[in-house]
Formats: sequence, C-alpha cells, structure tokens
Amino acid sequence: MESACAPPPGSPSCMCVGFLQKNNSMEERTRMVTSFKERTAKNLQLTCDDNMGGDARFKRSENDFSNLFARVNVSLFVFSRFTYEIAPVFVLMEQLTLKKMREIVGWPDGEGDGIFSPGGAISNMYSVMIARYKFFPEVKTKGMTAAPRLILFTSEHSHYSIKKASAALGLGTENLILLKTDERGRVIPADLEAKVIEAKQKGSVPLFVNATAGTTVYGAFDPINEIADICEKYNIWLHVDGAWGGGLLMSRKHRHKLSGVERANSVTWNPHKMMGVPLQCSAILVRERGLLQGCNSMCAGYLFQPDKQYDVTYDTGDKAIQCGRHVDIFKFWLMWKAKGTVGFEQHIDKCLDLSAYLYNKIKNREGYEMVFDGEPQHTNVCFWYFPPSLRSIPNGEESRERLHKVAPKIKAMMMESGTTMVGYQPQGEKVNFFRMVISNPAATMSDIDFLIEEIERLGQDL
Amino acid sequence: MESACAPPPGSPSCMCVGFLQKNNSMEERTRMVTSFKERTAKNLQLTCDDNMGGDARFKRSENDFSNLFARVNVSLFVFSRFTYEIAPVFVLMEQLTLKKMREIVGWPDGEGDGIFSPGGAISNMYSVMIARYKFFPEVKTKGMTAAPRLILFTSEHSHYSIKKASAALGLGTENLILLKTDERGRVIPADLEAKVIEAKQKGSVPLFVNATAGTTVYGAFDPINEIADICEKYNIWLHVDGAWGGGLLMSRKHRHKLSGVERANSVTWNPHKMMGVPLQCSAILVRERGLLQGCNSMCAGYLFQPDKQYDVTYDTGDKAIQCGRHVDIFKFWLMWKAKGTVGFEQHIDKCLDLSAYLYNKIKNREGYEMVFDGEPQHTNVCFWYFPPSLRSIPNGEESRERLHKVAPKIKAMMMESGTTMVGYQPQGEKVNFFRMVISNPAATMSDIDFLIEEIERLGQDL
Repeated sequence: MESACAPPPGSPSCMCVGFLQKNNSMEERTRMVTSFKERTAKNLQLTCDDNMGGDARFKRSENDFSNLFARVNVSLFVFSRFTYEIAPVFVLMEQLTLKKMREIVGWPDGEGDGIFSPGGAISNMYSVMIARYKFFPEVKTKGMTAAPRLILFTSEHSHYSIKKASAALGLGTENLILLKTDERGRVIPADLEAKVIEAKQKGSVPLFVNATAGTTVYGAFDPINEIADICEKYNIWLHVDGAWGGGLLMSRKHRHKLSGVERANSVTWNPHKMMGVPLQCSAILVRERGLLQGCNSMCAGYLFQPDKQYDVTYDTGDKAIQCGRHVDIFKFWLMWKAKGTVGFEQHIDKCLDLSAYLYNKIKNREGYEMVFDGEPQHTNVCFWYFPPSLRSIPNGEESRERLHKVAPKIKAMMMESGTTMVGYQPQGEKVNFFRMVISNPAATMSDIDFLIEEIERLGQDL
Repeated sequence: MESACAPPPGSPSCMCVGFLQKNNSMEERTRMVTSFKERTAKNLQLTCDDNMGGDARFKRSENDFSNLFARVNVSLFVFSRFTYEIAPVFVLMEQLTLKKMREIVGWPDGEGDGIFSPGGAISNMYSVMIARYKFFPEVKTKGMTAAPRLILFTSEHSHYSIKKASAALGLGTENLILLKTDERGRVIPADLEAKVIEAKQKGSVPLFVNATAGTTVYGAFDPINEIADICEKYNIWLHVDGAWGGGLLMSRKHRHKLSGVERANSVTWNPHKMMGVPLQCSAILVRERGLLQGCNSMCAGYLFQPDKQYDVTYDTGDKAIQCGRHVDIFKFWLMWKAKGTVGFEQHIDKCLDLSAYLYNKIKNREGYEMVFDGEPQHTNVCFWYFPPSLRSIPNGEESRERLHKVAPKIKAMMMESGTTMVGYQPQGEKVNFFRMVISNPAATMSDIDFLIEEIERLGQDL
C-alpha cells in the first residue's frame, strides 16, 4: 500500500496518486479520481516530441520513469482485463500500444482493432475465426454446416498453428492447402494462384491465405505484396503471421522484408519473440474495426452491463475467446517506455548482425554446409556440420543417413555437458540440420565463436 | 548466475546444484546432471508422509523451502513449455500437479490427462474439442461437415465461455441448448433428459453436457450425479466446469457439493479463482488418456523430433492448441508447497465462513432481500438493497424500475469515492442485484460490515 507516496494536496508536479483508501477524505478522493483521469492518457503515451529521423514512427520514446503514474496502480488492477473497471490502466495501455503497433504496420492513423492473446498460435487462430466471420457470419450461430467448403492456404514452411486452428475451428486439416516454396522457404505466388483456381473449380471457397513473415525454420519472409495481389483478385482474407518476423518492423534497416504488410487484413506479431518481452505477449491486429467484437461477443449480462457509469466501449473483454486475461501488456508497455522504439530497433539490428556474423563465419568454413544459399533474411542460420569422418564419403544414401544422426548426437552431448544448446530438425527431404536462432541482444560474437568451437569439439570424433 | 551456491563435490545434503557453465569441468557437469535427474522427482512432490486425518489426499504438504531444487533452475527454464528440454522442471511440475488434482477429483490413482491453459474459457473450449474428437475424430481432418448435427447442453446460468466455444469451434450457438434451473440456479436434470430426447428425435446427436460446479452469478452447483446418470444413459460426454467451484474439492467440509465429479469425462478447475493463485492458472483435466494428444497433435518436425536423447513423451506441448505456453504451473506448485493441501482448505473454508457471515447479517436486515432463499452454496451472496424511499412502495412495475437502478447507482458512487466495489447484474426476469463474492481469505468480518455500511451510506438518499 503506497499511500505514503501520495503527494501533498494541490501539488501540480506529483508523480503518483496513491491508493484510494477507505479512510481518505472526500476531498482527497475527488482529487485522486480527477488526477487519475487527467494524467492517465498523457502518461501512457509511448512517444514524445523530439523527432529523430524522418519517420514519425521512430521518434524516441520517453524513458523518464518518474512519470509512470501506472506504477502505483499496478498492484491494484493486476488481475484481469475483461472490463475497464477491473483494470482501467491496463485497458488503456493495451489500446494505446495496439494503436502504435498498427501505425508501425502502416495502417492509416493506426486505425483498426486488435487484442493481446496467449501466444502466436492463438493469435493465428483468431485470424481464421475473424476471416470466417467476415465472409460467413452465420457460422457463429449455425455452425460450419451453414458455410460452403472453406479452404485455407499457407506455406509448407509455415508454423503448425495454422493447421491446429483448421482442426480446432471445425474446418478440417484437409481443407488447409500447403503452398510450395522456393529454395529459401518463401511461398511461390504462382503456386498460390494455381491452387486457388483449383479449389474454386472444385466448388470450394478460398477463404484465407496466411503469409508468413519469418518462418520458424528458415526465417523466410513470404512475398506479401505478390500474395496480396492474388488475395485482392480473388477476394480472400490475407493474414500475415509475423509472430517471429513482426519485430523487424521496428527496424528501418530490415522492415522492407515485410513490404506489403499494410495490405493484410490481419497480422500476428509476438513481442515475446524477437523483441525480448518475457513470454507471453502476442498481438492479433485486425484492419477492419468491429469484426473481433462481432465474432466473439456474447454479451454476458454479469460482465457487460450497459448501465455502467463509464463508456462501456472500454470493456474490451468480449472481443476475446478468453474471459479474464493475463496482463501481458504491462511488460511490453514498460519495455517500450524504457527502451523506446529506437531501443527495440537497436536490439533487432544487433541480433541480425550477430546472425550475419555466424553466417559469414561458417559459410566457407571446412566441414560446414549451408542449408540454403545466401544471407538469411532473419536470424535463423541453418547449416549442416560434417564431422571429419564424413567429409571424405561421397554424397549418397550412406552419407545422408550418417549426417542425419550428427545433429541429434551433438545436441545430446551439448545437453549432457551443459555448455550450450542449439536446435535441429529435418525439413522435407533434407536430413537433420542445425538451426541457430538469435533473439537475445546480450549475445556476443564470442558466444557465436564458442558455439562453433563446441560443435567441432563434440563432433570431431563422430 | 547462482554458481556460488553449488555445493562442495560429493556433499550429499546439497540443496541446490548451480548452473551448468561453459567453464565447469567435465566431472562437475556429470555430477550436476546426475544430481538433477535424481533430485527432481523427489523434490517436486507435493505431499510428505505425516498423515493428517483419514483422507490421504489431505496429507500435509512439505513447506521446507530449503529443498526447492527448482529455484536454481527457474531462471534458466522460465520461457516456454512445448518441449521437455526447454522447461524440464516445469514439465515435471505440471505433470505432478495435474496428477494430484486428478486424485482430488477422485479418478483412481490420479490417472488421466490434462494441461494448464490460459484461463477457464479456454479450458472449457478444450473440453468441447476433446468430446468432439472422442466421438467424431474425423472432424479433425475433414471439418464439421463430416459429423452430424452435434448438440451441446449447458445451464442457462452457466458461464458464457461454453457459448463462445460453440461459436469458435464451428458448432454454432444455436446448437447449444440452455437448460432450465431451479430457483437456486441448479440445472433441473429432468429438463436435460427431455431436451436430449427432443434433440435425438430431431435427428441431432447430443454430444456434450456441461455441469457447472459454482455458477458465476449464484455460485450454484449443478447436481452432477443425476446429470451423470443421464449422460451415461445416452452416451454423452460429461464436462464439469469447476472453474469457480473446483477449489471446494480442497475442503473436506464443502467438497460434497461436487459429489459425482469423479464421473465426469473432463473437469475445468481454475486455481486462479478460489485458491488465490495469481491469474492465469487454469487446468483442464481429462479422464481418458490420449484424447488431448490425439485431438491437438500436429507433430511439427521442428519441435517434436523423435530422435531426441530423452523420453519424448515428456514433450507435452503438442497436446495444446498453443505453442509456447506461459509458465502458470510454477505459481501454483509453489503455493501448494508453501500452504499445503490443508492450507488451501483453510483458505476456502474461511471464505465460505465470511460469505455465510454476510448472508446471516443481511438476510433479515431491514432494506435487504435475498435473490434466492437459503445459505449460498459458494461465496456468492446475491441481494437487493432497497433504499428507504423504496421500502414503502408496493411491489409493481414502478418499484421494479426504480430498484433496477439502485445497484448501478450505488456501485458508481462506490467507484467515485473509491472505498469499495461490488458487482451487480440482472438475471433473467430479476432486476439488477448486488453479487458479493469472496475469494480473498485476508478479508475480515469488519470488511463485510464496512461493505454494508457503505451500501447504506451511499444508498440512503436514492
């Protein structure tokens, strides 16, 4: 209870307001409530006026924590967010931060809608639900039998959450069509168009295309503009799964990789991935207002009373498939206040620099082979390591079989010795390879050097 | 980095293991890994051997924090839980705690399955998904058109998440049939049976019944045994939504209100409600093993490699509709270690005692009328307050209209003066009434007295 930090009455520069208490006098209460209303909007802002660079989205954020009004309210309102009255500060933080994210996506004036959800898989699930509601709202009441056969499209390299959503939402995984990718894991737009036409010829309705911005394994960015052209031509919902790659929107150097994202109908963006916010913090952003609410609202009388004393449009909870929600926004908002937009940009540029360092270190190094050519688009560096005993064996089935076992063995030894850990997986016809992903800007070039030393130390006798 | 607390080599009583470091010697590494494996299983246990009372489920839990091996590992493994290797301690904590919860539900040896989800609404959504998968597994691949028309049943007093699930999963809200309740808000079993028969006569398939253990507004417990009889007779999935009331299973005095819960096919139980765990912490428990996995698994090659060096049945993430999950289990497990089963029991009994105190205080007090007769089953105390000006007006439309505005006005004044806050809502034909819910055992009788004083102070001139 921080009433001790309540300022002297009338102090114009007071930076915190104190808890409302049973024993506050009526004057104190009035002052507190008024101050709350006046100060909240101002103090939650994520940017201030000193312009840095030409792009208004990259103004330096405030990092003066003395004005964090919210800090004295946090413990009071920490529990849930279905109604404004239960978590007023967090509702405002969420609205403001979502608007800022939409501005960065490139939607005019940050207009649109959105909500924070418990992870990218659920955000992607929202996107499918909203697309279905947009084109076939009667499914909400009548079920999937009220709609024709609906088809979803996504890259063969996309995250498995699109498939999970197709199963959960009653569309069926067989109605999710996988799109071919080029050698670097990017969707081939011509394959999308061919498959859209094929689906229509079969009497199905192409509903939804997912373009991935930053695939899980290769870190590939699908060509959003070319995909958007096809979606517009055939009137299909375009979702961009930027769970992993959305963070690059914060970097003036790298955001071109998401060129066209502003044409999407919805975007998943997980600050808990590339931006370093502790898990969970994922946003689903929607270009058209009202769909989230229309899709999910049930207007429970015990939560959403129309006769409340405040503007009930702030009761954002009915947009969610959840009821109470974890307060994911606070971590993100606080980091943004502390680091600023430019701080996130530096974080991201640093990670991409490190992955470029790793790529350049091993691309011509003896015993290594890159899984795809050229510098990775994201921080995913995918490579095979050939122990000395494998280097003289000609390419063939035996070599493939032995190589397939190398990464699991080295990873197991890494875990046993506890020095480092790096993931591996096969992909399509390709046998197990290492996938090094960097999202921690505290990593250094010497950490990268150590990783390579460890792989060679542990793998030399395999 | 707590390597400073690593014990001297060979010390049998060492209580923490220290982080594995790049510069640990091989012997140190081996000792740490071995120690980790041996100690983890033992130290995670929630009960020890001193028997207290006849019911083994109520043995006193350990609260000796010196043996919390997990504490040194937490910061290492805090991020995610889709695979064992990323969060080994939390995966084990989750498995152990879910087993303990299933034991308390009453399933033999705690057998079954389950997962922690981001809230009761998602847990209830899981229950519908699993029921559908059990009876119509082909929906996963072919979509809802592969199934006949499926019908869900739930109380007209149940939580809106069942309706949200029916919309999201493609069943349609019109295929959710609401069941009549008695005057205290409990489902009337005969109404369920009549509606099941009616649905079957129309050619639909009754799939799923939700029995609520602790409704949102009245805190009512549906008669689970009678509902289970009907579900068994007609081969329908029985889910118990104990999001709110599940905590009463921890109380030997109150758990009889969930009598029959062991006959359910699935149970939602939110420790973040009645048990005071910070939001979010919700479990979906499933009696039959394998359904969660079958329903949701997509076997993504980049996460669930079969050639890992450990038992991959610990990779529990593919059971979830999420990918990475927030570590909700740790808060709950830690509270259980600290308070013990008996501590939770005391917490719950205290809250119910306080609500009984409120009920007894106002049931015959001038100006109050209870919304339903008799002591509440849970801590929900629902009542109208009649300001003096209303007490002389005869019952009728004018009196109803004025009474409908009393609770919103008093609540608004409470919020303006910041002294306390209590919810209100209408229910069916009943005009707005107060619903006081107690889940904080730090509340006291004097807080209850204060609430009543405030209602009367603020409402006296209305």
